[in-house]
Amino acid sequence: MNRLTFDITMSLDGFIAGPNATLEQPLGEGGEQLHEWLVGLASWRETHGLAGGTTNRDSEILEEAMARNGATLMGRRMFSGGAGPWEDDPNADGWWGDDPPFHTPVFVLTHHPREPVEKQGGTSYTFVTDGIEAALGQARAAAGGKDVAIAGGASVAQQYLRAGLLDELQIHVAPLLLGAGVRLFDEPGGDPLALKVARVVESPTVTHLRYEVEK
Amino acid sequence: MNRLTFDITMSLDGFIAGPNATLEQPLGEGGEQLHEWLVGLASWRETHGLAGGTTNRDSEILEEAMARNGATLMGRRMFSGGAGPWEDDPNADGWWGDDPPFHTPVFVLTHHPREPVEKQGGTSYTFVTDGIEAALGQARAAAGGKDVAIAGGASVAQQYLRAGLLDELQIHVAPLLLGAGVRLFDEPGGDPLALKVARVVESPTVTHLRYEVEK
Repeated sequence: MNRLTFDITMSLDGFIAGPNATLEQPLGEGGEQLHEWLVGLASWRETHGLAGGTTNRDSEILEEAMARNGATLMGRRMFSGGAGPWEDDPNADGWWGDDPPFHTPVFVLTHHPREPVEKQGGTSYTFVTDGIEAALGQARAAAGGKDVAIAGGASVAQQYLRAGLLDELQIHVAPLLLGAGVRLFDEPGGDPLALKVARVVESPTVTHLRYEVEK
Repeated sequence: MNRLTFDITMSLDGFIAGPNATLEQPLGEGGEQLHEWLVGLASWRETHGLAGGTTNRDSEILEEAMARNGATLMGRRMFSGGAGPWEDDPNADGWWGDDPPFHTPVFVLTHHPREPVEKQGGTSYTFVTDGIEAALGQARAAAGGKDVAIAGGASVAQQYLRAGLLDELQIHVAPLLLGAGVRLFDEPGGDPLALKVARVVESPTVTHLRYEVEK
């Protein structure tokens, strides 16, 4: 369908990572609890090269998102695993290893021109220096009629949202109050924006809320 | 059941009011959009002395909450309609008029001792100066076996939550990005706290998420 989507896990109190994130603990203190619903799922384990795991309504939601996704957009911090001195190394090869979990062409928003990189498992990295619309255009062309997913971070997603380019937002609300950390929606967020509830799926460990962005 | 509950509408980006609240616009700029799901409901209109309105799944949720509620707790700002010089007038009679929408005994947390006030429609105000546990004890005694509801504000609810006294949290998530305003969960919120998903109810205009606070 070539829609632009953003899919992320958020605590009920609005955080997508705990405080004091490091390269070793990229989700910050307590942040791993956000992904408790995810890490045991067979479909999540498979994308990370792991066997076994659970199949349930949550894994169906994840598989659905992966099946729709033909290309991925991300910011440079997401590519390099977080903020820090390493992100200024133009030869850094990304934080995601030789067989990254994206399994699609990935378009990285950056200010540093760089040659594309091919990885295993269908992931390639293309570095785009001429802005979010150009990156979206390249991603759509690469997606082969499928959707384009924003992998993060939050500020990149906000830029697409506020530019009127995002079609769909799916938030997996973890039943957790983190108390501190990195907010998905940080002030100032611009004028109020109405969304349309597209789907709600309940599970014991997370609530999947899907919204359409009204144009 | 004599449980302590807190029930509030929050935008998807975590706000319970827009910015720049005034006595005339207590929900701040854009904040009235939060309550769009509510104000047309027959059960909401009835508590505010208005006829007519819609009956649907949303009104059932609201009626259920009202039926369970035997007493109400609130902070002094909530009682007086917001922050401002009027809140220091010990004789202020509250912002909610002669027939307030609470229809139960209300216990107001304050530092100013004051005689109780009787209003129409079953609402009375009792002013409690010796802390949140004392106020809860008085509210439970007055609730006649029913639940006690925190009417707000957010900081009062957080105090009960962080003291381990809150049993249940129901958040009505409005499909809306307010962008700025008053957050329900403001930093610093303390250590991470896991909740249990108790119920999810979907409607076209709002998503009702109910959580149990694990003890």
